This record gives sequence, C-alpha cells and structure tokens, in this order.
Amino acid sequence: MTPLRIERLALIGLGLIGGSLSLALKSAGVVGEVVGYSRQLPTRLRAQELGLIDRAVDSVAAAVHGADVVFVATPVQAMAGVFADLAPELSPTALMTDGGSVKGAVVAAAKSALSAAQWAQFVPGHPIAGTEHSGPDAAFATLYHNQRVILTPLPENSPALVARAETMWHTAGAVVERMTVQHHDHVLAATSHLPHLAAFGMVNALARLEERYEVFRYAAGGFRDFTRIASSDPVMWRDICLANRGELLPMLDHYLAELTQLRAWIDAGDAPAIEQQFAEAKAVRDALYRPPAAR
Amino acid sequence: MTPLRIERLALIGLGLIGGSLSLALKSAGVVGEVVGYSRQLPTRLRAQELGLIDRAVDSVAAAVHGADVVFVATPVQAMAGVFADLAPELSPTALMTDGGSVKGAVVAAAKSALSAAQWAQFVPGHPIAGTEHSGPDAAFATLYHNQRVILTPLPENSPALVARAETMWHTAGAVVERMTVQHHDHVLAATSHLPHLAAFGMVNALARLEERYEVFRYAAGGFRDFTRIASSDPVMWRDICLANRGELLPMLDHYLAELTQLRAWIDAGDAPAIEQQFAEAKAVRDALYRPPAAR
Repeated sequence: MTPLRIERLALIGLGLIGGSLSLALKSAGVVGEVVGYSRQLPTRLRAQELGLIDRAVDSVAAAVHGADVVFVATPVQAMAGVFADLAPELSPTALMTDGGSVKGAVVAAAKSALSAAQWAQFVPGHPIAGTEHSGPDAAFATLYHNQRVILTPLPENSPALVARAETMWHTAGAVVERMTVQHHDHVLAATSHLPHLAAFGMVNALARLEERYEVFRYAAGGFRDFTRIASSDPVMWRDICLANRGELLPMLDHYLAELTQLRAWIDAGDAPAIEQQFAEAKAVRDALYRPPAAR
Repeated sequence: MTPLRIERLALIGLGLIGGSLSLALKSAGVVGEVVGYSRQLPTRLRAQELGLIDRAVDSVAAAVHGADVVFVATPVQAMAGVFADLAPELSPTALMTDGGSVKGAVVAAAKSALSAAQWAQFVPGHPIAGTEHSGPDAAFATLYHNQRVILTPLPENSPALVARAETMWHTAGAVVERMTVQHHDHVLAATSHLPHLAAFGMVNALARLEERYEVFRYAAGGFRDFTRIASSDPVMWRDICLANRGELLPMLDHYLAELTQLRAWIDAGDAPAIEQQFAEAKAVRDALYRPPAAR
C-alpha cells in the first residue's frame, strides 16, 4: 500500500464529521494544508481556532481550488449546491468523497452537477460514527478509531482512486467496507435512520403530555440511553429522512406493524406471545453486544 | 429521625432489585439477618453464595416468619401468589413493601390476599433504578445511590410505617418521593414502560428482516444505546406490560399517532415541519440531560 500523502485537503462542512477526519489526518502527519469552508462565518472562525483547518475561505470554490482531496461533510440536502459550486474548480486528478449518511440521493445530486469525468472522481462514502453532538467543538481526532466506514464506489471510479479513499480512512483509524449504494441505504434505514426517527418521536410524544414536566422528572437511565439520539442535529436528520424516504418509510411501516401486533397481544392479555417476543428481542440484542462485566 | 434497625429482613425474590437492597442495608450495618426465598433453588444458593442473604429458605412463609421487614421483589405477576403465601406468617408489626414497577395491579393483588389489618402494613414502593441485567449476580450495593424511589402509600398506612419505609430507602442511598398509585402508573407508562416496549419492538422488527445479519453488522453506538433496554428481563417486562396495560395502551397509541404524523410529513416532503419536530425533541432532551463535557 502506497503511504498516504495529501498536499491540500479541502473540507466543505466543518462539523463533527469533517473536523474529526481533519484532526485524524493531521495527527497522522499525512496532510500538508487543510482549507475549510462552512456557510456560517462563526463556524469557520471556530474551526480555525480549534485547529480543525489551517485556513478558512469564504466559498466552496476557493476551498476546492488546488486541493488534491476534497471531503464534503455538510448535511446531505446541502450537497447538491456544494457539488455545483465546486465543479468549476475541481482539479482533474483530485479525489472527491463525502460523509453523507444517505448515498442514493447524494450520488444523484453529484451526477447532475458534475461532468462525466468529474463524476468518475467521486467515491461516495459514509463513516458509521458520530455522537449526538455536532459542530466544530464536537470534533475529535479519534472519532473514527475502529469504526466502520462504508464506501459505495461507482462503476466509473478507477480502482486507484477507490484505494486512495480507502487508505485515507485507514489512516484515520477506520475499518473500511464496500457495498452498493442501494444496499447501503437499505441497511442504514434499518439500523440508524429508523431508530433516530423513533427516538425523536418518543421525546415529542411525551413532551405533548399535559404533565410533561412531571413525567420527565421520573425518567431514569433507560430513558436517557433510549433517547440519546434524539439530541442529534435536527437539520442533518431532517435531510437524511427526506433523502432516504424511499427506504425509510417502508422500514417505519414495518416497525409500526410490529408495535401494532404487540399492542394487540397486550390488549388480549396474551402473556406467552408477549414473553416470547421480548425473549427473542433480548436474545438478538445480547448476541449483538457483549454485556459489560458484571459489577 | 429514628435510626433504622431491622432485626430480620425477609427478601422474596433474589434478583437485582432485592439483592441490591439487601447489600445496601448490610453495608450500612442496619440489618441483623437477611432470610431469602426465590422459586428456583439455584437462585437461592447463588444469592447465599454472593452474600445477598444470610439464609435461604424453601418457602415464602418460612422467609416471612419472624421478619420485621418484608421486601417483595419478584416480577409483578408473581406477587399475588406471594401475598397469599405470606399472609399466614406476616408478623402484625412488620413493615411490608415491594419493588414492583407497576403499583395499581400490585395493590389490588395485595388487597385480595391480605386481611384489612395486614393491608395497612403494606407500603407499596417502586425504586426507579436498575440496569438491563437481572438475577442475583447483577445486584450491587450502590444501585440505589442518588436514585429515586417512589412510595405510593395507602390511606390505611400509619405515618410511622410509611416513615420506616422511607428511612429504609434513605439508608440505601435513595431519594424518596411519594405519589398516588394512579399517578405513578401513568408517569411510569410514559417514561419507562412505553420506551421498553418500543425498544423490544425495534429489535424484533429488524430481526424479522431477511438480511438481519447484514443489518445488525452495521449497527453503531446510537443503535446500541437505543436498544439497551431491549436486553431487559422478558418475564419482568411481560408482567409490567400486562399489569399496567390500562395506562400503557393509550400511551402507545399516543406514540403511534406521533410516528404516523412524522410519516405523513416525510412522505409529503414537508421539510420545515420535520425540522421543527426534531428541533423540539432535541431541545426537550438536551434540557433534560446535561451533555457530558466535550471531548
């Protein structure tokens, strides 16, 4: 494997995802200069202050100019505009990749904004990492350590370019896998997009109760963990839900059917059926995550 | 406040809740002897081996005989049988209390099994504490430290008896509050019973997908936290759902309506409505839990 060297990294979007990749590559000593752009001036200044970027610029085009790697880490709904803005300045040898949680909509946006040659420079990706915090202050260099990054290469990508994207993520500490765009969006609808929707909905359902203050007072550790992802960035998740609605809505219907079936069993007092469902869920989850050592 | 002294504590149910109370009272040095009963012989032996109890007996009656405090910590559906078994041996001066997560059904079960005088000895309670682990090995002395315990005293309880229950929980490190049985069951349906149902349902919905192994492979930290409570004890939660179905089912309907509304907005592409919902949920949750210090 050729060791990674990036002369100039262009970072579009200076939050948790972009900022953490920059910090990881900087701490690995493989990047010359990081040039960053975010729509908001205070975000740009803060990112520079925190050392996520070496230089802040005031347009996408200025960030991309002369960069050999371009990483787009904005909310997915903003990416169409970013691709249109960067197209005139994208170096013909640059690798372009992204961190969007949805791949189908992002790939479609790139296709309509880029030339055929530029399109072949785009290796779509999705780091399966994050916390419920967002913005430049949330970034840290080890976010991707041992986390999965999914690349969904396009048929038009050269093997060398895909390998470069892979090496970049390895350098950041990640485990890289490849799958198709369609498969990615289906799997993530199940394990990430639906749970976020369910958590946002749960907090709101309870917040709508007349006695909401009283109710939340008695929320314990289980509720805190269950709703952690409802503290995630609303704009990012609005975008994901809309961009992946084709996969998300059938998955939500599947979940609603499950809850409706449980409702019927509880209403009917069908103790064996309920216990079996709960036992199956516990067995699946216990197998998925090794429990911490007993205290 | 009179310092607490318990000559003989009878523990019915030797899992996380009962075992942890015993360990807490033992480590505070306020209890003479702990006599324990569980339906399963291996559980009794293990509880003794772990020091949760000083002596294991093979019937509820034998455990309660001569005890000045009786703590019932079985799954709630088993409590009717426990109350019937203990009635003949309950000392007329003993305090009886429980750790059931539902209070209405437990109070009704106690009422039908006990004499009027014994009924007045029962101070129903619910420690809002626990982990997703269960059984004697899960018990630890500090489980209740700074956790809330809700007592739902009956009109028939003497103030002295309620005070004794309160002192016992204070001694275990808990913060004690009082509310009515009905209010307890409503509040807990919202913050605990519904989230558990939603988490069990989520794991099962995903487990039913054809590509379940593939799907779970990409589950990240958000999913792990969201589904932690789906690793809870199936029998305990079956009982809670059935015992509190009067409060749980309307709460579930309220949640289903919330998800159905979100579904409609996503389907219609109503970005402002979705963003507002997510932002409200985030604001409510952030206010509820102070975020950990940024890394």
